[in-house]
Amino acid sequence: MKRIALDMDEVLADIYAKFKFYFERDLGWKPKWEDYAGGKIYELEGAKHIRDYLYADGFFADVTVMPNSQKVVKELVEHYDIYIVTSAMEFRNSLADKYDWLNAHFPFIHWKKYVMCGDKSIIQADYMIDDHVRNLKTFDGKGLLYTASHNVNNEDYTRVNNWMEVRAFFEKELAKDGIKL
Amino acid sequence: MKRIALDMDEVLADIYAKFKFYFERDLGWKPKWEDYAGGKIYELEGAKHIRDYLYADGFFADVTVMPNSQKVVKELVEHYDIYIVTSAMEFRNSLADKYDWLNAHFPFIHWKKYVMCGDKSIIQADYMIDDHVRNLKTFDGKGLLYTASHNVNNEDYTRVNNWMEVRAFFEKELAKDGIKL
Repeated sequence: MKRIALDMDEVLADIYAKFKFYFERDLGWKPKWEDYAGGKIYELEGAKHIRDYLYADGFFADVTVMPNSQKVVKELVEHYDIYIVTSAMEFRNSLADKYDWLNAHFPFIHWKKYVMCGDKSIIQADYMIDDHVRNLKTFDGKGLLYTASHNVNNEDYTRVNNWMEVRAFFEKELAKDGIKL
Repeated sequence: MKRIALDMDEVLADIYAKFKFYFERDLGWKPKWEDYAGGKIYELEGAKHIRDYLYADGFFADVTVMPNSQKVVKELVEHYDIYIVTSAMEFRNSLADKYDWLNAHFPFIHWKKYVMCGDKSIIQADYMIDDHVRNLKTFDGKGLLYTASHNVNNEDYTRVNNWMEVRAFFEKELAKDGIKL
């Protein structure tokens, strides 16, 4: 079985849904995608403190699940050895929150397949789905870049804009071996 | 720089020092190494519950540092890219404790180099030091088996009995390239 290393933040977990909530609460207006595309929402004027919420106990506990991710990952688990590989180490308080979140929303992935790390260059897999170019750069396998505002200008990787596109990519991969997803 | 994946429990952290403390407290006698060599201390009669302490919040917070490990790792950091790779995922409460412990006792290793995982087959490195044969089995690089009661009968890997033996091993490796540890 080929191995997929699946990123969590901005791939399975919709971190920006929370950022946008805090942004509107603290700054009093609702930025549009175009306002921060090419960068991060907290790079907008007066929003620098928004990133600091990541350090809070509980931030990662109630993040919204990315649309269709549960359904598609559940299908992929039948054909691939799926690991959740998340850069969690900058945020000490995120560890238990992320553990509980994965357990609650992706119960069909065993805890043996969770990897909380810092630098992902130590990860060995056939595919990696990630929103950070830096993680795909040090990866030896096939990297899929999951669209996020900060990566819209990158053209070095196969881009996936949502989970239905992830599904379509692996549907084609499996079809090469005569397997139907 | 070559990469070393360093296990935590029973390699950097002396888990058995705590097990022995609880064993004596709960069972009223002090088992000797010979009593459990070839297996685990909690496999002795009446001690099955000892393993369950691993699930407790705080168990990993105050574990004793393995003799000479800090000194040797600090030397190795100059010549190797060192990651701490620990199977933490069975124990949800261990995550923050392990993070704090590493930060307190191995401050010269950046959090970017911490990896908390389940199954270690996803790890890519040149060397792995581990007390579990199952982790070395799925490892592609050079595995060093750190002696623990449960692995004393294994002869498949280069054995290291303590941190001065780890040091001696890498001193020789570096000498091949004309480098003095």
